[in-house]
Amino acid sequence: MEEKEISQAVIGRLPRYYRYLGELKMSGVDRISSRELSKLMHVTASQIRQDFNNFGGFGQQGYGYNVGFLYEEIGKILGLDNDHNMILIGAGHLGQALINYMNFRNRGFFFRGAFDVNPDLWGKEAGGVKIYPCDDEKMKKFIADEKIDIAVLCIPKTQAPAIAGKLVSYGIRGIWNFAHVDLPVPDDVQVENVHLSDSLMKLSYNLRRHTSETAKNGKKSEDWDRNL
Amino acid sequence: MEEKEISQAVIGRLPRYYRYLGELKMSGVDRISSRELSKLMHVTASQIRQDFNNFGGFGQQGYGYNVGFLYEEIGKILGLDNDHNMILIGAGHLGQALINYMNFRNRGFFFRGAFDVNPDLWGKEAGGVKIYPCDDEKMKKFIADEKIDIAVLCIPKTQAPAIAGKLVSYGIRGIWNFAHVDLPVPDDVQVENVHLSDSLMKLSYNLRRHTSETAKNGKKSEDWDRNL
Repeated sequence: MEEKEISQAVIGRLPRYYRYLGELKMSGVDRISSRELSKLMHVTASQIRQDFNNFGGFGQQGYGYNVGFLYEEIGKILGLDNDHNMILIGAGHLGQALINYMNFRNRGFFFRGAFDVNPDLWGKEAGGVKIYPCDDEKMKKFIADEKIDIAVLCIPKTQAPAIAGKLVSYGIRGIWNFAHVDLPVPDDVQVENVHLSDSLMKLSYNLRRHTSETAKNGKKSEDWDRNL
Repeated sequence: MEEKEISQAVIGRLPRYYRYLGELKMSGVDRISSRELSKLMHVTASQIRQDFNNFGGFGQQGYGYNVGFLYEEIGKILGLDNDHNMILIGAGHLGQALINYMNFRNRGFFFRGAFDVNPDLWGKEAGGVKIYPCDDEKMKKFIADEKIDIAVLCIPKTQAPAIAGKLVSYGIRGIWNFAHVDLPVPDDVQVENVHLSDSLMKLSYNLRRHTSETAKNGKKSEDWDRNL
């Protein structure tokens, strides 16, 4: 498929389509129209058609999309037809929560090892993988030997940029970053940030705005898009 | 301040402004122009001005924004001048990681209690708060007594919609949802989703796309916006 430039907003919506299509497929649904999918997902049918047109439209022919085909195609676009090998950097509470989360494995994302500065953790296991010292040579060799493509960063923000720089020099091409800082990495390294505090502040904004609107207008807010 | 309808995309960028301004303030910077802020944050100066114009512009007068004032104003917009009382539903690995995360407390978000179906956890503490049975009457009373406004959902997706419905009926107005499902709640309830698998899939897409582009064009991708 010829690929044109696709906005990160569209990409951000693909996993949600993938999730709904997976559930439809599991429920035995073979075909679905953009209008039915729209109703289910609470997005407009025109948005769905526009999003899918970025990838050639997936061939809706008046009588709906083929659910199994669409699910598989979106999976391919998301790179889920390949497995990913990951390392965890920082095996604290959050890191151990991520490494124990089965869903990632089901999608082809496998933690192969964890690294931490805390000697109490060295040699122990989390989620079935060993925890190693955050030693430069060890990390470098592990990344090469185990063909690691993604590093998951669960370390304090003060340390994250320096560690990210090292990991990139060892061959890491993708960083899933939970440290609350933006990472300065080369353009050919992909970073996906999960800034939990930012997300909580957004919730706080929406709570405050809604409360003040209700107080002012005495009516409910109708515009909230709960699917963001 | 008169509030107009502001897109969730703009709201989603406010916490990042808030973070950078907080760091500037800590470093003793008093004033900053949109051009300097633009360079620092890797967004265009026109985007910054457009974003701030949604809130009246914050009075840049040719010689830059007042960092302390801007920090405080954005904090108010985000509702950070009020404390929030939260409960955790589901004190597994991820829930316990969240409850132990100090940063939320620094922003005025306080966990007051946790609820879990696992009897082994009942009576124990996590992050300084007690873990209670997921009992309807107990949750209802706790939410009222402790003036809880936010529930943090770290439970399997199969159970999340039913629990969310109950919590709303007990008075919860904000849900921070880590369950991998969209929650059907009334319009006056605010939901902020953190779908970790979706974020990982987006990273996978960008990795795959970049790899295939490099292979095709033999050049680096220049368009990746690492600030998303």
